[in-house]
Amino acid sequence: MNQFKIFTGTAHRGLAEEIAGRLGMALGDLTCSHFSDGEIRVDLNETVRGFHVFLIQPTAPAEGRSVNDHLMELMIIVDAMRRASADSITLLVPYFGYARQDRKNGTRSPITAKVVARMLETSGVSRILTLDLHSDQIQGFVDIPMDNLNATALIASYLNRQKLDNPVVVSPDMGGTKRASKLARLIPQASIAVIDKRRPQPNVSEVLHLVGDVAGKTAVIIDDMIDTAGTIVNAAQALKDRGTIRVIVACTHPVLSGEAISRLKAAPVDEVIVCNTMDIPEKKRLDKLTVLSVGPLLAQALTRIHNKEPLTEIIEGNIALEELP
Amino acid sequence: MNQFKIFTGTAHRGLAEEIAGRLGMALGDLTCSHFSDGEIRVDLNETVRGFHVFLIQPTAPAEGRSVNDHLMELMIIVDAMRRASADSITLLVPYFGYARQDRKNGTRSPITAKVVARMLETSGVSRILTLDLHSDQIQGFVDIPMDNLNATALIASYLNRQKLDNPVVVSPDMGGTKRASKLARLIPQASIAVIDKRRPQPNVSEVLHLVGDVAGKTAVIIDDMIDTAGTIVNAAQALKDRGTIRVIVACTHPVLSGEAISRLKAAPVDEVIVCNTMDIPEKKRLDKLTVLSVGPLLAQALTRIHNKEPLTEIIEGNIALEELP
Amino acid sequence: MNQFKIFTGTAHRGLAEEIAGRLGMALGDLTCSHFSDGEIRVDLNETVRGFHVFLIQPTAPAEGRSVNDHLMELMIIVDAMRRASADSITLLVPYFGYARQDRKNGTRSPITAKVVARMLETSGVSRILTLDLHSDQIQGFVDIPMDNLNATALIASYLNRQKLDNPVVVSPDMGGTKRASKLARLIPQASIAVIDKRRPQPNVSEVLHLVGDVAGKTAVIIDDMIDTAGTIVNAAQALKDRGTIRVIVACTHPVLSGEAISRLKAAPVDEVIVCNTMDIPEKKRLDKLTVLSVGPLLAQALTRIHNKEPLTEIIEGNIALEELP
Amino acid sequence: MNQFKIFTGTAHRGLAEEIAGRLGMALGDLTCSHFSDGEIRVDLNETVRGFHVFLIQPTAPAEGRSVNDHLMELMIIVDAMRRASADSITLLVPYFGYARQDRKNGTRSPITAKVVARMLETSGVSRILTLDLHSDQIQGFVDIPMDNLNATALIASYLNRQKLDNPVVVSPDMGGTKRASKLARLIPQASIAVIDKRRPQPNVSEVLHLVGDVAGKTAVIIDDMIDTAGTIVNAAQALKDRGTIRVIVACTHPVLSGEAISRLKAAPVDEVIVCNTMDIPEKKRLDKLTVLSVGPLLAQALTRIHNKEPLTEIIEGNIALEELP
Amino acid sequence: MNQFKIFTGTAHRGLAEEIAGRLGMALGDLTCSHFSDGEIRVDLNETVRGFHVFLIQPTAPAEGRSVNDHLMELMIIVDAMRRASADSITLLVPYFGYARQDRKNGTRSPITAKVVARMLETSGVSRILTLDLHSDQIQGFVDIPMDNLNATALIASYLNRQKLDNPVVVSPDMGGTKRASKLARLIPQASIAVIDKRRPQPNVSEVLHLVGDVAGKTAVIIDDMIDTAGTIVNAAQALKDRGTIRVIVACTHPVLSGEAISRLKAAPVDEVIVCNTMDIPEKKRLDKLTVLSVGPLLAQALTRIHNKEPLTEIIEGNIALEELP
Amino acid sequence: MNQFKIFTGTAHRGLAEEIAGRLGMALGDLTCSHFSDGEIRVDLNETVRGFHVFLIQPTAPAEGRSVNDHLMELMIIVDAMRRASADSITLLVPYFGYARQDRKNGTRSPITAKVVARMLETSGVSRILTLDLHSDQIQGFVDIPMDNLNATALIASYLNRQKLDNPVVVSPDMGGTKRASKLARLIPQASIAVIDKRRPQPNVSEVLHLVGDVAGKTAVIIDDMIDTAGTIVNAAQALKDRGTIRVIVACTHPVLSGEAISRLKAAPVDEVIVCNTMDIPEKKRLDKLTVLSVGPLLAQALTRIHNKEPLTEIIEGNIALEELP
Repeated sequence: MNQFKIFTGTAHRGLAEEIAGRLGMALGDLTCSHFSDGEIRVDLNETVRGFHVFLIQPTAPAEGRSVNDHLMELMIIVDAMRRASADSITLLVPYFGYARQDRKNGTRSPITAKVVARMLETSGVSRILTLDLHSDQIQGFVDIPMDNLNATALIASYLNRQKLDNPVVVSPDMGGTKRASKLARLIPQASIAVIDKRRPQPNVSEVLHLVGDVAGKTAVIIDDMIDTAGTIVNAAQALKDRGTIRVIVACTHPVLSGEAISRLKAAPVDEVIVCNTMDIPEKKRLDKLTVLSVGPLLAQALTRIHNKEPLTEIIEGNIALEELP
Repeated sequence: MNQFKIFTGTAHRGLAEEIAGRLGMALGDLTCSHFSDGEIRVDLNETVRGFHVFLIQPTAPAEGRSVNDHLMELMIIVDAMRRASADSITLLVPYFGYARQDRKNGTRSPITAKVVARMLETSGVSRILTLDLHSDQIQGFVDIPMDNLNATALIASYLNRQKLDNPVVVSPDMGGTKRASKLARLIPQASIAVIDKRRPQPNVSEVLHLVGDVAGKTAVIIDDMIDTAGTIVNAAQALKDRGTIRVIVACTHPVLSGEAISRLKAAPVDEVIVCNTMDIPEKKRLDKLTVLSVGPLLAQALTRIHNKEPLTEIIEGNIALEELP
Repeated sequence: MNQFKIFTGTAHRGLAEEIAGRLGMALGDLTCSHFSDGEIRVDLNETVRGFHVFLIQPTAPAEGRSVNDHLMELMIIVDAMRRASADSITLLVPYFGYARQDRKNGTRSPITAKVVARMLETSGVSRILTLDLHSDQIQGFVDIPMDNLNATALIASYLNRQKLDNPVVVSPDMGGTKRASKLARLIPQASIAVIDKRRPQPNVSEVLHLVGDVAGKTAVIIDDMIDTAGTIVNAAQALKDRGTIRVIVACTHPVLSGEAISRLKAAPVDEVIVCNTMDIPEKKRLDKLTVLSVGPLLAQALTRIHNKEPLTEIIEGNIALEELP
Repeated sequence: MNQFKIFTGTAHRGLAEEIAGRLGMALGDLTCSHFSDGEIRVDLNETVRGFHVFLIQPTAPAEGRSVNDHLMELMIIVDAMRRASADSITLLVPYFGYARQDRKNGTRSPITAKVVARMLETSGVSRILTLDLHSDQIQGFVDIPMDNLNATALIASYLNRQKLDNPVVVSPDMGGTKRASKLARLIPQASIAVIDKRRPQPNVSEVLHLVGDVAGKTAVIIDDMIDTAGTIVNAAQALKDRGTIRVIVACTHPVLSGEAISRLKAAPVDEVIVCNTMDIPEKKRLDKLTVLSVGPLLAQALTRIHNKEPLTEIIEGNIALEELP
Repeated sequence: MNQFKIFTGTAHRGLAEEIAGRLGMALGDLTCSHFSDGEIRVDLNETVRGFHVFLIQPTAPAEGRSVNDHLMELMIIVDAMRRASADSITLLVPYFGYARQDRKNGTRSPITAKVVARMLETSGVSRILTLDLHSDQIQGFVDIPMDNLNATALIASYLNRQKLDNPVVVSPDMGGTKRASKLARLIPQASIAVIDKRRPQPNVSEVLHLVGDVAGKTAVIIDDMIDTAGTIVNAAQALKDRGTIRVIVACTHPVLSGEAISRLKAAPVDEVIVCNTMDIPEKKRLDKLTVLSVGPLLAQALTRIHNKEPLTEIIEGNIALEELP
Repeated sequence: MNQFKIFTGTAHRGLAEEIAGRLGMALGDLTCSHFSDGEIRVDLNETVRGFHVFLIQPTAPAEGRSVNDHLMELMIIVDAMRRASADSITLLVPYFGYARQDRKNGTRSPITAKVVARMLETSGVSRILTLDLHSDQIQGFVDIPMDNLNATALIASYLNRQKLDNPVVVSPDMGGTKRASKLARLIPQASIAVIDKRRPQPNVSEVLHLVGDVAGKTAVIIDDMIDTAGTIVNAAQALKDRGTIRVIVACTHPVLSGEAISRLKAAPVDEVIVCNTMDIPEKKRLDKLTVLSVGPLLAQALTRIHNKEPLTEIIEGNIALEELP
């Protein structure tokens, strides 16, 4: 069997190092820098000829570099690897930027998630591995295999170690009920509640309904990402107003843009649990922020892909966390 | 400007004839028959060289022919037209079969809607026009223009002519709230309700919640399609149980498979409103069934596409029905 | 070396089971069913990640399902397998539906065999294996490897075990002389005859000429398929009229559509030999029908493909039948 | 409507000039020359931006340049035109080189006709027009429109002006009976005969049978091309041996390679009729050679393609010759 | 003929407005903004259905947005336009970012200019128009038409209006001699000089040679772009050292990154002439900077493309500047 | 690991035999012949199923066959191999014909090097290995891996064995300085000179300048190819005129077309060193011609590609020649 190598760009070196470390490997020697005018320069300093390459990079903004910068970096690295005769290139993209633009919002909208998917597919990538992709249909945007893991089991396991008192899992909107129910199944005794923003009549302002019983409970608001935190902070307030004892917010992707940090700081939220699918700079590291690592999950998936073993268990989130490397 | 011709296969000749008739044209001379072993035979009996061709065919089952038969018929007609030097081929697919299989349901599922989309795209089609597509992301499955009309205005207009007494628009599940709110905006004084199937606790059986006030009202249950009618019939029963005076069911696509007809017949439903996006055989024509024609809408869209005028108004459903041809 | 798995759809499970059985394997766990509206549902119940997959399915009609249904089933299964990271997918299509529509018959005909070939090629299949393809040029419709086996040696071997008395191999038309000569070379002492339908003058009706000596002989009419059986039954009558003692009909593909069964029953034919390249339902199993299995041939080809051994001997039909598994 | 321009390479300038002349046009200014090392140099000396371009070139050998040279010349001209923003490029390829290699002859053969077809298709050509293509299936090798004219009406018209005495149309082998019958339909009172090379028994040498009555008649041997002339000369001798009074040979493509000229000179053939689908150098112009021009036919087709009128009549050869320009 | 519309993104709105203004048109209504997390949002506020669209955007960095941001913006706008049924999309990319990375610098380098070219080609663009592309071979990276204008005539015309005293055109390195000679041909009485950095022996440090006579002359250093200005400032110093009276620097693309501005300010350069192929922010507008507009040239090219007139004259730079709109 | 086989066409069998011989292998059994009309016939006489195939062929003219003939031969062989299920096909093209036509020379030129590159890429080749490619950008014309070796080390090693007296490496024009400096680095004590053809003023005739000191030295003129030898012979004369003692000409590709041989014979050149990247017929073998074999270099590269070892050292020419097989 061919051997494999693991590489990363600049978007989240920490995660890549963690994954490689868990597998007892060093990251491949690849330098991504910038020319004076900002153009990306990629130097691949070791051979990939005949190797199965795993390239880890969330296409998230970080440290003054935009999602576009990290996406182009990925494109350029892949070009270098393909021309250097890598046998296969598997992308690990824990956060898939532009995923929310997955359909035409008006009659003349772009479908930017498809633009990104087509770019990656035509770059010569062999396979893409993502995590909690914003919508499942994006897998149909490409014809190459695209596997989508989820972080629900990680979050449940962390919560269960806390032995939550009278837990209720709360979806902050109607679109997230499936995700909430998935988490609730993994937490003993958890009930479910849903927050429902609805206009009772046309032209009447939106009202938050809370379906389900939350008074006296520990609420876990679950979502796939926290971006500006507006929806979540409103939900938290609604829960407190209805007598919730403690409010925990949990999500996979900590985008945390705009006013997110100051809103979360001010909100009646006791703990914010996120995953490290993108780099979280120091200034966003709130006191009440808990970061769970997706490193073990991705390391496990990477190993299985390389060993040609099924991903089913880890995609379905049923794998025992103890088994993770 | 090139002239255009309109053709149809065998899946729903009635609709194509209506559209052509409204535009003062005859359908193009195309024969679709079958060889003795069931293989499709297509004879294109008039020239299409240099013409813009509009080909109308829902990929729905009909009269002992499956969705697959009608899809292959489309593929074969398109091949004949392309080889016969048609300048462009626009498909009008009022019902897009397999649209519900638009993502991986398990870890090893096909994405059949993408299979179909790719087949049509690689056949050499220039543009696809659909109607109330099951999910918007399917537009991202192809790179050719794919416009998606909706039938909401048609249905609203019909309902408004009835002058409904104290109307409430009901979504039969959580996924359909957007569709319900779209319809409600077009009906004066209409409120909204949502039926919510939810398990209060894991391992407890599903319970129908009805969010919103329905007692003493005229309910309009709205959905994109009626297939086996199970969900809708349960919703109707729940509405009646909660004091609704009259229950109207409205949907775009009358798939009406399996037990649908007998279920609807037995259900506490006063009227079933559907569109003619697919052929409805005589035996499915319930007494309480009202069929609204999408012919004027499609004729309008076809004319605009040919005249290179924007579709925005008719995609958004804001076009005055009187303007339709 | 990667291991392999064998799967089949619903078109001819018996043949697939026979092939797998000869190789000491069970068929892979794949469920093909239908939704209430007739859409195909595919569930791939075991991993194919990293496996070489062989998928066996003739695209023939069977049991109320059309050639289109079986072709789409193939497309959908392939999509599932590709997305599930199969290393390669080899199709075994013992009967290739639509192969007779391999060129434009008029100036505006489709080339449906090409439509099918392009569909399969763009589905992501790695290789196609067929048997007695209607015309050799179809191999040029795709750019992937497409190997075409033939069943002549199987038929010859069966006939030789009968020790035919004074055999003559008869081509039922001018197009089939090459096939007849191929078979005759494998039968000791066999002579050849050809039936020639020809108009002696324009506007004069067609006359059957029989070139070659058949009186007092055992005639074997050979063709690639029996569809409606019209040509073959006429040929049989002509042979009897010219003093043939016994008439055997042999072909590879038992399409047997329309009036075929009743015609063959009534015709002066003593035995009808076909191969099991498609499923033959009970009602078509005439008393005088002999079915030879292509299972050993396909099992042999599959093994060689997997072992990366040449197919030359089995494509040329020169392999000793005893060597088949 | 865009205007059009006509260009040619070096393979057969005479035919292109004739076609342009019939349409009252001059050929576009294009220089094809060679660098010192034999590489082709193409200079496109006038604008094609926004024009529909017709490019006339048989891919036949001529004057010390091989079929490969003329094919590459075509590829290079097309590249120049596409990069120079031609609106569409229609190839007129009256002789399609490599057409006889249209299937795998052995188990490891190339399909060279497909190689050529794919090269032309990927070069960016919009449409191909051919004449008496060796096999119809080649149209399925490409997905762009490919129309195939035939020269039968031209040949029939010429023969009818001779008022043949007691004519019989002869196919020189079994594969050509369709072509012979097509011609015979256009010649009043013509009967048909077929020459049949067949081995009566395996391992017995091939014998020429002549099916049909030829004694005392004027025979017209018809084929698609004369290459080395072996088959045709044998056929002519067989006809003479059986009492034919006069033997005319007619074909579309005068390849005339190897010993063809000396064989035809020595053979009992009274006239050889060919078309000018490729250049015929002076040294091949036998006394008994008659060259019919396909110029009017191609000029007509070109005009119809440009005017977006159907080609059906001229493809079917039913057009009155007087109507040709 | 279809009408056309002109659009622009955010990279250089000024240039697009100038071009549209010269053609008496307003820019199309297109909004490019950013979501809170930096993802690009594109709103196409007017119809493009059936229009020929010209989209103007240099892929240069500007105002805190990187070359990657502007490239992705282009990709997303094109997607929106294609899905909105634009008839054709012509990109005007006056500065083509990443063009210097046009070959493998080491054995494992990417070819980033090809990555960009492939991205644009697969986005569905019909044609690309560039200006002074870094290397001509980049046109071969795509198969769509790609025309490359040059700004030499603009620069010459400006210089000639100054009536330079005893002019010498200087190439700052060996690679630029062709460009220098092109400019010198357009300036009456201009001689040429070349600066040659060369190591006389291996391992000896580089020395600037100046080939040609410069003492007492007005030197014009010409290059395709000024990036960090290192090479040009060294050249200016060398010229001054050798007795040049006045040093003018002229280039097409004012990248002006890193220390460029401070270097130019300190250098013995009297005037810096650049074109507005990218936006030049206020802080880079040195006193001695002269900006020539490529607006007239691009407006002319756009008009000719739309009118399907040849670009030859303006590509070769031979067009009289008075003819520009 | 799969085994590999080595094949060649007719362009340079000698080189292929040498390479195979060095690896202890025989060439694969492949017959390339011609039909009577000059069409190429390819017979692949042994299995390639599952093998990694290396196909060696320069696309150079040879023995009355043009570059086009050898290119088409390559295309046809590749088609045969792909259809015969070769696992991968690596082309070794030591001389890449048409490489000099790598950009548009005028506004309507073809980019023939791209035409060739696209043909090879779409033929199904897996990888291309070239040697001293005319311009590096050609690697960007394809998306498959394309590695480019160089012969500098070979030439240097040969020269060093001669222990040149006071050596100077001379570039015959401005474009070749990089190549000269590369060679000079490998020759102890070598200085560099450059010949510079330049017009001092517009409309003044070109003058040869010689930059660097050559009097009393041994000059080595280095270039990538000798085609008509005009430039090189002029350079040699200029060197002699300036007092060079001995003039050696060294190049990789001995195209030697037109007057090259007679020019070189008459020129003041003491030795001409070339590589055997193409066949050199007897009549071109000047007395003063030395032919260095690239066989060891290509054999080494082939082995490394097959063993999936990096090519870096041999691409950079740093490999010790003793290590070559």
